[in-house]
Amino acid sequence: MTHPVSPLALPFPELPAIAGVTPRVARARYKEWDRCDLSYVELVPGTSVAGVTTTSKCPSPEVEWCRAALPQGHARALIVSAGNSNAFTGGKGRAAVQLLVETASARLDCAAEEIFVSATGVIGVPLPQDKARAGLEAAFDAPPCDWSALTDAIGTTDTFPKAATTSAMIGDTKVHLVGVIKGSGMIAPDMATMLGYIFTDAAIEPALLQEMLSAANAKTFSCITVDSDTSTSDTVLAFATGQADHARLQSMDSSGADAFAAAITDLCRQLAHLVVRDGEGASKFIEVRVTGAVSDESAHRIALSIANSPLVKTAIAGEDANWGRVVMAVGKAGEPAERDLLSIRFGGVEVAAEGMVVHGYDEAPVAAHLKGSDILVEADIGLGNGRATVWTCDLTHGYISINADYRS
Amino acid sequence: MTHPVSPLALPFPELPAIAGVTPRVARARYKEWDRCDLSYVELVPGTSVAGVTTTSKCPSPEVEWCRAALPQGHARALIVSAGNSNAFTGGKGRAAVQLLVETASARLDCAAEEIFVSATGVIGVPLPQDKARAGLEAAFDAPPCDWSALTDAIGTTDTFPKAATTSAMIGDTKVHLVGVIKGSGMIAPDMATMLGYIFTDAAIEPALLQEMLSAANAKTFSCITVDSDTSTSDTVLAFATGQADHARLQSMDSSGADAFAAAITDLCRQLAHLVVRDGEGASKFIEVRVTGAVSDESAHRIALSIANSPLVKTAIAGEDANWGRVVMAVGKAGEPAERDLLSIRFGGVEVAAEGMVVHGYDEAPVAAHLKGSDILVEADIGLGNGRATVWTCDLTHGYISINADYRS
Repeated sequence: MTHPVSPLALPFPELPAIAGVTPRVARARYKEWDRCDLSYVELVPGTSVAGVTTTSKCPSPEVEWCRAALPQGHARALIVSAGNSNAFTGGKGRAAVQLLVETASARLDCAAEEIFVSATGVIGVPLPQDKARAGLEAAFDAPPCDWSALTDAIGTTDTFPKAATTSAMIGDTKVHLVGVIKGSGMIAPDMATMLGYIFTDAAIEPALLQEMLSAANAKTFSCITVDSDTSTSDTVLAFATGQADHARLQSMDSSGADAFAAAITDLCRQLAHLVVRDGEGASKFIEVRVTGAVSDESAHRIALSIANSPLVKTAIAGEDANWGRVVMAVGKAGEPAERDLLSIRFGGVEVAAEGMVVHGYDEAPVAAHLKGSDILVEADIGLGNGRATVWTCDLTHGYISINADYRS
Repeated sequence: MTHPVSPLALPFPELPAIAGVTPRVARARYKEWDRCDLSYVELVPGTSVAGVTTTSKCPSPEVEWCRAALPQGHARALIVSAGNSNAFTGGKGRAAVQLLVETASARLDCAAEEIFVSATGVIGVPLPQDKARAGLEAAFDAPPCDWSALTDAIGTTDTFPKAATTSAMIGDTKVHLVGVIKGSGMIAPDMATMLGYIFTDAAIEPALLQEMLSAANAKTFSCITVDSDTSTSDTVLAFATGQADHARLQSMDSSGADAFAAAITDLCRQLAHLVVRDGEGASKFIEVRVTGAVSDESAHRIALSIANSPLVKTAIAGEDANWGRVVMAVGKAGEPAERDLLSIRFGGVEVAAEGMVVHGYDEAPVAAHLKGSDILVEADIGLGNGRATVWTCDLTHGYISINADYRS
């Protein structure tokens, strides 16, 4: 089953190689398809790793493995299986993870905890060990591939390959960051949604990389939602190979740490937006900005209430500036709000203020804005200084079509 | 805009008259339509009233009026406007409520607080005072109508009229209860969803009626969800005229109080189910039962997480026993859960247990169950004795069609 490319897709960017990162892909044939679906990315010794994973109480064994392995802080390889999430598969699922990890650590002569694993696809079918082993061994023998081949190999229902790049100056040295990501449904905030991998040649202590990734995650991946559904397998991992020639970043006080933190946040935001742009059935990319809440946390919850409201999302799909539904979503958020202080803007035009519609507001620019593909919805709560921004997509017939027959 | 009748619609029941209740309907023409849209229900002096209203932080002025009027406990009339919710309309909206209430209290020579008001329809347009006044005066002069005419007059996007009845024995006296209800979208739990009115000839103290209604609400209206969106106007009011010939119910210790409490709960459940059966775009009525949670409250939150998951709802629309999505929804609920203790049933057949699929489970009865219109999903969390049941509908193309062009 393939779906048309999202109308919000962006072209695949030019991406630099990252010293110390060698991706390879192979066919494990986890499903009845003829495509690469096992990715093996070898990392040079000394690579630092950081990660954030799903908050689901029913995580996949891959997520459990990564959580346990992250604290030691180093990585030699990443293995990604696409087409089977291996989630909710009991002891068989754990055994498949063990097999992949041991096979790779034996080859690299490293600790098992330096091998990181992810899987994505249908829930409830144990990852077949024979296919996994054969796929991994085929990948060992495959030539190194480019980023495009890697993004293709980690995708499932994605309609376009998603990657981004940025750079930062650390002293006189330019370091490079590349991120690849997959995901278009079962995307909700409050954790690191979907599967994303960030590679950089920067030299950085694992604890500092973790601190920066967690901070970036809170402002980016935790601020997107496609359908309010949180996956069992969501993982974002960042790998820093240390091949760039600069003084190793030890803490936020190190020279260049600010620049690198800004760069990784920028990269995460680019990747998060790409996931929303491939939201299942999406026809509009929606930014929801909430200001004037009693705190930033309160603003975040109100913004998510708006972004997750099916009535708001269908109104925007219908190009309808239905601010009444935004009022409804603010009202149901459970956060402090005062009807008569609330104001709402679409595309920067105030349509409601002080508890009622703005009489005689100019509908033409609002209607024109709603016909575009990038929509801005703003709600000012009028109570304090709390602010938050989240990103989502609209809810269309496409979402229903994709999800009413996914398994078949 | 009219939509086809829900495939889950039930026939309109035979309903008894309730002594002391006189409904009348008229054309206020709140919208460009030729139908009755103003309902006026006169209640005999001495009628007790109880109510539950939306938890929205942005309630309509009608809801605010009812909240303020309820504590005095008595009612002489109910006025319902359909086609305009009057919500988020500032001082103009409050003035329209005042006009309706004062016009009716002057006619009945009663306190303004004995007049109860509701409105439903588009948000943000002040209820036009001239239309409201003319409609109410036309209703004063109209002949009494039957329940069917009343349910037609309070409806908006409803595709079928919704009412239910039951009775209870208080001593040797049979008392009658009739409920009418409207609503099919912007339906979510955690408050008294939609507009519902219950009429009974029982004689009962207002405080006791409130106690019984609140308890019934917690088990019925607060356990349904169509789309997770909470309206600004939700209201359920219960009116007891006291015309039946039995010793007045004073407390839960009064003879017959248990029977009446059971009857009002039964009636609320019938009405709540009718709303789900008219859920926008619904093709399946879904009961979600959660057992084995750490508490009833935890079970309720897990059940709602399942019932509100768009991926679960679209899977059921597609007649797919996709228990992996149920696992996902349990996992994201934020409640204690242990993957390896979880079991899931569709139509009574266990499909997953102890962290993995039940190998060789009989798919035929599960597939047959999913093809039906009444679907049962059960999740046992395996941790404690907490249990809860909620009701919802599936998510189909019909929901998108209805809501992407509602305002136009």
